[in-house]
Amino acid sequence: MGFAELWAALLPIGRDAGTGGYRRYSWTDADADCRAWFTAAAAERGLRLDCDRDGNLWAWWDFPPDGPGGQPADAIVTGSHLDSVPDGGAYDGPLGIVSAFAAIDLLRDRGFVPRRPVAVAAFTEEEGARFGLACLGSRLLTGALDPAAALALRDNAGIRLPDAMAAAGLDPAAIGPDDAALGGVGAFVELHIEQGSALAGLGAAVGLAGGIWPHGRWRFDFTGRADHAGTTRLADRRDPMLPYAVTVLGARQAAAGHGALATIGKVVAEPGAANAISSAVRAWLDARAPDEAALDRVVGEVRARAQAAAAAHDVEVSVRPESFTAPVSFDAGLRDRLAAALAATGIEAPVLPTGAGHDAGVLAGRLPTAMLFVRNPSGVSHAPAEHAEPADCLAGVAALAAVLADLAGR
Amino acid sequence: MGFAELWAALLPIGRDAGTGGYRRYSWTDADADCRAWFTAAAAERGLRLDCDRDGNLWAWWDFPPDGPGGQPADAIVTGSHLDSVPDGGAYDGPLGIVSAFAAIDLLRDRGFVPRRPVAVAAFTEEEGARFGLACLGSRLLTGALDPAAALALRDNAGIRLPDAMAAAGLDPAAIGPDDAALGGVGAFVELHIEQGSALAGLGAAVGLAGGIWPHGRWRFDFTGRADHAGTTRLADRRDPMLPYAVTVLGARQAAAGHGALATIGKVVAEPGAANAISSAVRAWLDARAPDEAALDRVVGEVRARAQAAAAAHDVEVSVRPESFTAPVSFDAGLRDRLAAALAATGIEAPVLPTGAGHDAGVLAGRLPTAMLFVRNPSGVSHAPAEHAEPADCLAGVAALAAVLADLAGR
Repeated sequence: MGFAELWAALLPIGRDAGTGGYRRYSWTDADADCRAWFTAAAAERGLRLDCDRDGNLWAWWDFPPDGPGGQPADAIVTGSHLDSVPDGGAYDGPLGIVSAFAAIDLLRDRGFVPRRPVAVAAFTEEEGARFGLACLGSRLLTGALDPAAALALRDNAGIRLPDAMAAAGLDPAAIGPDDAALGGVGAFVELHIEQGSALAGLGAAVGLAGGIWPHGRWRFDFTGRADHAGTTRLADRRDPMLPYAVTVLGARQAAAGHGALATIGKVVAEPGAANAISSAVRAWLDARAPDEAALDRVVGEVRARAQAAAAAHDVEVSVRPESFTAPVSFDAGLRDRLAAALAATGIEAPVLPTGAGHDAGVLAGRLPTAMLFVRNPSGVSHAPAEHAEPADCLAGVAALAAVLADLAGR
Repeated sequence: MGFAELWAALLPIGRDAGTGGYRRYSWTDADADCRAWFTAAAAERGLRLDCDRDGNLWAWWDFPPDGPGGQPADAIVTGSHLDSVPDGGAYDGPLGIVSAFAAIDLLRDRGFVPRRPVAVAAFTEEEGARFGLACLGSRLLTGALDPAAALALRDNAGIRLPDAMAAAGLDPAAIGPDDAALGGVGAFVELHIEQGSALAGLGAAVGLAGGIWPHGRWRFDFTGRADHAGTTRLADRRDPMLPYAVTVLGARQAAAGHGALATIGKVVAEPGAANAISSAVRAWLDARAPDEAALDRVVGEVRARAQAAAAAHDVEVSVRPESFTAPVSFDAGLRDRLAAALAATGIEAPVLPTGAGHDAGVLAGRLPTAMLFVRNPSGVSHAPAEHAEPADCLAGVAALAAVLADLAGR
């Protein structure tokens, strides 16, 4: 079983020596190294490598194994993503892919023979860290995102998505939905580190996803007037930093009032000089709630606070949604079947809701989808301290192997 | 008289096509182009170019003109700086240098023969936009800044000051005070665009500086814990963005309470991802007040607000001064002499205080120093809209020529 070897080979790629966090952004050198790692892992296992038109990687354990080839049908696919948030942890994404290869190793060691094709998938730009749109690869694949909108995306340095893809050897003109490819997939199961500490509280090593909260990202642009910080009277200022600050505090208050989550973790002040009043402050609100009505109320309250504070400081504010993901209920029949397969091997897997988006949530709109979570003792995620114990990682591999054996074995 | 030609040649250098603002940062390509412009202006006028050990440029109209050379004595020096804040205006700094060359042209056209050496100086990194420390060149020259502290500075990209200087052909090991050079300067007069609209209100084209408010820059580092924005309960968060927001609002309130100015125009959120709670928020407070006691009260109040808010959110905060400039009273005798020389040519120049730091303020600690301000109709500064009318620029040149004729003519 190759979990440790696979993990060790992936671990140094894209790691920042200073923070210990990962910077694995789509179509960068670190991303190319991650993809080379995936390609090598597939080759070592005799899996057929495929890269779809959106840059998502697939490693196929074909069935029939020596058949005439052609389009797989009714396949069981598992996997996750290799990209990271800035200074992210080692587990979010990669754990699902390493565990997928390791689960195939485990099944083969046991002499398991699949009756349906099995594949490991690595989806592109799940975190949206480079181009600002989460689950880019799976959204393009399923048609949830217009290719024209994707082609217009730019990273923080102004590099256009099509240029970044072309530099990595992909054809940006080819991106878009691929119904033929998706039509061959019978079910998708994503294993992921838990991004909270509910499993730790329940004493369980693995869990099953119940659903994903509706969530989205809204961009707030506050526009004032740049001026000299040392000579402009307070009364003459149009400083966008002030209504921004009111908005930060308003977001926390609105979330608390509706049992929701709201966060501003990205802010850009322009021109960004210590001795200049800002001409503009741009901020991104991440908001999530148990249901769409609560989410609407949270965002509406934050917007109202921003507008009132902007008006009080003679500042303009515009608010526009950058992404929205409707609530996801994973396929109940598939979840029950996973729970039964796990129970048959002695694994008790509690069902958990989550506020985090995943490629599995995007694919859930097209085919039966489920998620397995692996315990995260501290609950820290999207940060270097994100961690799962080795024993829990192996428990995750065993659970995924049990699930694949059940789904692909008949 | 070459004002228009000098101005036109300098205008395109370092200008951003998108914002129309200037990005003339020390030791960059734009800075090299500005220095080449200065060198050409000196050469066209037969002025002797000198670059001191701190990278400040000097163009000497030597006296006696065909003497044996050597160290100038009792010289009258005028000038300003060529670097800009991010997206700064065209006038802050360059107006003083263009006007200096133009005033020399005007004096020569009139057949004026100086009895003392005259020089035009361009000081390095006055804005502190690249390495974070304002008046870097004049502080090093006068010994107000320890060379070791300067050598430890880094820009936002992590490039060390000595590496940037070396790449531009300077010897960073040589930086530091130069008493011999300063000992040859009898007086320094800096012409500068007004960074407020007081002259417009008074109906005057030029003014004289009374003094500079005490001012400084304080860095606030809020350190919390990075976490996933979609899965971390509000109660479990240590989000440094929240006490930062309280601090922004507290700074405005403290300034208003003490007739002072306080601004946060630079903020960096780390890791800066829209779907991650920040691990740290770093902010720079610019504060200025009519006297040191008021400034201490403003900074003390902001610090107390930051500490209380940080404690409430389980966030650490550290506050440390990055720069401080004591109040400057320009030499009263020199100011009176300038006022008399201007009055003799029919120029009424009101005396104004200012909240902005200048190289003249640094040099005032070592030698008689004065400043001339040129009217800025809207008062906008450190922004692309910064502007002076051509007629007022020429009035500034005439005033500076009158001052130089008086100071260097006897």
